[in-house]
Amino acid sequence: MMSQPAITHTIADLGNEMLLARTSAASQLNAQMGSKKQLTVGYVATMGALHEGHATLIRRAREQNDVVVLSIFVNPLQFGPNEDFDLYPRTLEADAALAAEAGVDVIFAPTVEEMYPGGQPRITVSSGELGHLFEGKTRPGHFDGALTVINKFFNILKPLTEGATLNAYFGQKDAQQLALMQRMVTDFNHDVVIKPVPIVRADDGLALSSRNQYLTPEDREAALVLSRTLAHLREKYITGVLTDTAVDEAREAINSTPGVRLDYLEVIDPATFQAPVDDQGRVLALVAAYVGNTRLIDNMDIN
Amino acid sequence: MMSQPAITHTIADLGNEMLLARTSAASQLNAQMGSKKQLTVGYVATMGALHEGHATLIRRAREQNDVVVLSIFVNPLQFGPNEDFDLYPRTLEADAALAAEAGVDVIFAPTVEEMYPGGQPRITVSSGELGHLFEGKTRPGHFDGALTVINKFFNILKPLTEGATLNAYFGQKDAQQLALMQRMVTDFNHDVVIKPVPIVRADDGLALSSRNQYLTPEDREAALVLSRTLAHLREKYITGVLTDTAVDEAREAINSTPGVRLDYLEVIDPATFQAPVDDQGRVLALVAAYVGNTRLIDNMDIN
Repeated sequence: MMSQPAITHTIADLGNEMLLARTSAASQLNAQMGSKKQLTVGYVATMGALHEGHATLIRRAREQNDVVVLSIFVNPLQFGPNEDFDLYPRTLEADAALAAEAGVDVIFAPTVEEMYPGGQPRITVSSGELGHLFEGKTRPGHFDGALTVINKFFNILKPLTEGATLNAYFGQKDAQQLALMQRMVTDFNHDVVIKPVPIVRADDGLALSSRNQYLTPEDREAALVLSRTLAHLREKYITGVLTDTAVDEAREAINSTPGVRLDYLEVIDPATFQAPVDDQGRVLALVAAYVGNTRLIDNMDIN
Repeated sequence: MMSQPAITHTIADLGNEMLLARTSAASQLNAQMGSKKQLTVGYVATMGALHEGHATLIRRAREQNDVVVLSIFVNPLQFGPNEDFDLYPRTLEADAALAAEAGVDVIFAPTVEEMYPGGQPRITVSSGELGHLFEGKTRPGHFDGALTVINKFFNILKPLTEGATLNAYFGQKDAQQLALMQRMVTDFNHDVVIKPVPIVRADDGLALSSRNQYLTPEDREAALVLSRTLAHLREKYITGVLTDTAVDEAREAINSTPGVRLDYLEVIDPATFQAPVDDQGRVLALVAAYVGNTRLIDNMDIN
């Protein structure tokens, strides 16, 4: 593990063969990767402020690939008018330390000017109906912004990883983001493989999230109703007794928990986020709720 | 030149080392191109029904590249509800003959099912404001559809042309399409070079277009007012007397021509299609008009 990386350099060798690029600097990145071609490259896209959830993605990428690339970019397009882009935490030195420990080879941390040289991009990615349901309702434009920047990162990384398979890691906790990324790869013919990474849970079942830090001890206890309700739905589905009434009762179980206010609970096909057509494919139960003042999401495969 | 290519095969060797791929068939295309890596690939995207305008693009690509790829795909996304996708001419055998003569190495003519396996794509490219001005007003959704499919073709071709520079040729006659493609390459970080190809004109100045065949002899004569007016604007610009009044007079000159009805005439920055900020960059005069029943477009650099 390294200490105090020289984060002010344009391209800085941070030890451990990790490279921090502040521009796309194709030729230099390419030279760095030159001896590793024809192999596999694992890619983890983040907005920085790295925590254990990111470390899980990075470690998975590390296990499965020859080279691991991490992007850190606080993407202004993903922030709505009520969400504070300027106040989003920028913790590059701590991020670089976590990244090095988890096994990252190259951090790509471009500036906003590097990613959007003319200000707002004119040509963007549209997430369609799938991007406007569920989380998309709460955060209008969020998924368009996320797809627009990930599409750019894919196009930046592919030529640099020429000949290598590019595996991109996304967590299943953000199930809708994952579905959109998978759909973009298909619809855009990206030469990229999306690798879903399962949700990491605490021993009591709570899905790990950076937002859990905002929960009071009472919130933390109340929040368990989410994962417990999902597990209950799974049990009902597997035993063939998951009716609409049972889903309504599950909603009521969440809403009647003191300090918890349900946003949505639905059973969906995780590829389309519509009602499952049959039980041949995966069936996902999906929940979002306010616990105290904190909005939490969770989901579980139930078939 | 070849005759009667076997267009029903999935991958058919059509002689002249030209390959017709009906699927993306990456490995086979790649094998075909294997010996030509590290070179340059010229790409011309078409909807088929090839004419002299396409031949100009292909010949330019042939002059400047080691390998020339032509795509032929009647893209349903580019057709509006009032435009007949089903009636658009499909002339693959004649197209293959023209392509071979103009020097194409590989024709990629995928099926609709190959390009849009799930029907309509869910994730698409949004052309933004630039796609909704001028021609975008007349054809809502047209440019979103064009960008969506060209984005796919770029992503399909890049891995196949690994190590090669991919040069994509677009005609300056469709100035707005060209601007959108250039902007998409920038905004999406496509590893592709857009190569604009100048307008080809008849001896009397009329810009060549497949629609010219619909002009009666009287229409053909009346249509000359378009290129003459653009040339007149250029003269005024160069001599420093292009005022708003002069542009209004130019509009009036077109509208007062019998059989001609102006849609728009504007002087713009061809990168943004907004009024030019200064005369440091290019300045383009842009016209669209109905001549008889035929809608024609033309444009000219005037500085």
